Amino acid sequence: MKMNIIRINEMKDFVGEEVTIKGWLYNKRSSGKIKFLIIRDGSGFVQGVVVKNEVAEDIFDLCDKLTQESSIAVTGVVRKDDRSPYGYELTISNIKLIQMAFNDYPISLKEHGVDFLLDNRHLWIRTPKQHAILSIRHEIIKAIQEFLNNNGFVRVDSPIITPSTCEGTSDLFQIDYFGENAYLSQTGQLYQEAAAMALGKVYSFGPTFRAEKSKTRRHLNEFWMVEPEMSFVDHYENMEIQEKLVEYIVQSVLENRSKELKELGRDLSKLEKIKTPFPRLTYDEAIEMLKKNGYEIEWGNDLGSPDETFLSNQFDKPVFITEYPSKCKAFYMQPKEDRPEVVMCADLLAPEGYGEIIGGSQRIHDYDLLIKRLKEENLPIEMYDWYIDLRKYGSVPHSGFGLGIERTVAWITNTEHVRECIPFPRTLSRIRP
Amino acid sequence: MKMNIIRINEMKDFVGEEVTIKGWLYNKRSSGKIKFLIIRDGSGFVQGVVVKNEVAEDIFDLCDKLTQESSIAVTGVVRKDDRSPYGYELTISNIKLIQMAFNDYPISLKEHGVDFLLDNRHLWIRTPKQHAILSIRHEIIKAIQEFLNNNGFVRVDSPIITPSTCEGTSDLFQIDYFGENAYLSQTGQLYQEAAAMALGKVYSFGPTFRAEKSKTRRHLNEFWMVEPEMSFVDHYENMEIQEKLVEYIVQSVLENRSKELKELGRDLSKLEKIKTPFPRLTYDEAIEMLKKNGYEIEWGNDLGSPDETFLSNQFDKPVFITEYPSKCKAFYMQPKEDRPEVVMCADLLAPEGYGEIIGGSQRIHDYDLLIKRLKEENLPIEMYDWYIDLRKYGSVPHSGFGLGIERTVAWITNTEHVRECIPFPRTLSRIRP
Ligand SMILES: [Mg+2]
Ligand SMILES: [Mg+2]
Repeated sequence: MKMNIIRINEMKDFVGEEVTIKGWLYNKRSSGKIKFLIIRDGSGFVQGVVVKNEVAEDIFDLCDKLTQESSIAVTGVVRKDDRSPYGYELTISNIKLIQMAFNDYPISLKEHGVDFLLDNRHLWIRTPKQHAILSIRHEIIKAIQEFLNNNGFVRVDSPIITPSTCEGTSDLFQIDYFGENAYLSQTGQLYQEAAAMALGKVYSFGPTFRAEKSKTRRHLNEFWMVEPEMSFVDHYENMEIQEKLVEYIVQSVLENRSKELKELGRDLSKLEKIKTPFPRLTYDEAIEMLKKNGYEIEWGNDLGSPDETFLSNQFDKPVFITEYPSKCKAFYMQPKEDRPEVVMCADLLAPEGYGEIIGGSQRIHDYDLLIKRLKEENLPIEMYDWYIDLRKYGSVPHSGFGLGIERTVAWITNTEHVRECIPFPRTLSRIRP
Repeated sequence: MKMNIIRINEMKDFVGEEVTIKGWLYNKRSSGKIKFLIIRDGSGFVQGVVVKNEVAEDIFDLCDKLTQESSIAVTGVVRKDDRSPYGYELTISNIKLIQMAFNDYPISLKEHGVDFLLDNRHLWIRTPKQHAILSIRHEIIKAIQEFLNNNGFVRVDSPIITPSTCEGTSDLFQIDYFGENAYLSQTGQLYQEAAAMALGKVYSFGPTFRAEKSKTRRHLNEFWMVEPEMSFVDHYENMEIQEKLVEYIVQSVLENRSKELKELGRDLSKLEKIKTPFPRLTYDEAIEMLKKNGYEIEWGNDLGSPDETFLSNQFDKPVFITEYPSKCKAFYMQPKEDRPEVVMCADLLAPEGYGEIIGGSQRIHDYDLLIKRLKEENLPIEMYDWYIDLRKYGSVPHSGFGLGIERTVAWITNTEHVRECIPFPRTLSRIRP
């Protein structure tokens, strides 16, 4: 007889059939002559049922001996079970032991401190919550790449090892590059601008690094970012593309990972509302709204975390904050034509207090204006020679943005701290495992 | 009248219609009362034709003034033209100048030295050959992700910043991590093994770093790699997945980027042959074949570049070289059951002398054997504590591999040197632009 070796997420296609699942024992309980085994295989979790008189004695005994995380191949018949949180159940007829796990598995099913869990991140990722977060992270990345690939973008990887281009390098990790100082990239944007002039619409998808000593729940020292850049696209079109992308991400997760969202207790109705268009608020309007509500902030100051949280809580969709004062933002942003003290930029704040997930802007395309802005900011023009070239040779209006993957994961999965939104987080005090 | 603003790669859908294309002047020539403009827009190249008496005088004059790389929006009617290398032609009725490029554009249409071109990499990527290579690189990455996503793999990013796990760190770039020494990752494999025990089938897709002082045409100090890892998969299934992946990559490029392959003068018939199964040669057979053909190599030596080139030239498909002596390979590879001096590994050599594009193996899953191998190699066991945990808690047979993106691009695009196969190469002497 042919053996169906399947994965747990394929059980729906095998109801009533005998299948074999290779995986690990996540948990078990006993009820007289019945053993319940919770099995995980990487694609999902399922409950297997072993009835004393329906299996060989050694199989039933094995259930008693099996330690948490032992690897097993279980064979049984798939039953649909609407009362089960997994939707299906396996009536087990046979169990093949692959390895009996040492009986000191560190992560028991009780609560552990977060430092202990982070020390055991290589095992912590096996638990249902972390499994769900990482599965959704995968779905988010997949959705981003699908959206961009389907819309004519070309992936152009920015370099990670870069020479310094800024006056200050305090936020950069320094590396010894064959005796020369180099730095880990904080953003690939400048390279993406060069690529957009060659390939039209481009994006990078890679790790970025910030040597910030912050320990907030929104900061990682190593995180992933997608940075699209588009020639012949202005500030307004830029925002339209961003909101379409974010809508696509959220709707893809809802469509393909609703089981994982439910595992996390996510309120799906909040995600279902994430449809374009998103609200837009100018920085001026934001300041006014903050002041009216008792926040002490003056025009010209950058928004802080509490300000962003307040603003985002006024909406049930992500909100664009646009046209910041030029002095709050980077030198390369295009000033507004009739009001040059503000720039054609937008930050996209996620709902529910998850903060900024996108920063974007139209870039300066005029050669003289770029030189003027570099001088105003006292930046070393010679370090920007190749970047300036882009304004000498066929400059065009262009725009782009950067979306932070882990903050987006935190928002969609409703995870308090971004350190659980990346497989192996790097923070101020942690580079292991 | 509605204006069709399209990209060059969409022209086939607009034959006989008036369209506008926004792009750059790549080249031009004149033939009496006709001007020929070669326009690029990032999605492709096309010839535009301007006839003196059919356009306004200032438009015709503008053609004379236009400098190389000037940005323009051109309007005209799309004509199918089978004699044209582009397949289509634009009969131009109007040209809107966006920016007249400075007339000292460094990359003229004559030959330049490679150092000069690398200094101007930000502009070099605008030329047809580099455009084609980078477009195919995009397609290769897209195909890899599609294949893995469609086959149940979950993307799990490995960390880039890592503590040292090896005895020697001479091949690693060192970074200052808040006063502590850390290193840029050479491979995410160990992390992928942890992830495979949590999520079943996983892959990382990221940059990897080698601080090697080699200057060969096959080496970059920063390059991209995909590293799939699969629980419950042995050495033989591992090779089957690899060959299916490589077939999928090549066939996707043929299907979607034949124009770019032709631009590069690629012999398509060689790529059309890349169908599974690929030949397999044991290391023993490879040594015998080399010796017979006058190569001086003894059993136990690793294969060198000339050896690999000779071997790959015996086949018109990629060839697996399997079961290397254990001492040529890393500590974690599974020894062959009946012959423990060789390991269950395979290197996949690309045809046409492009060298190794994949290295893979079944990993040791037995706890005692792993400890023994670590000791034999004098590796610091305490640095591998979390990796050893994977053998304590639910160990299962598992396998994985790493495919180097730029070497794959070099092979498929028939590019001599990998430095042209990455947007912004980092080599021994270069981190700019
Ligand atoms: Mg902000
Ligand atoms: Mg080799």
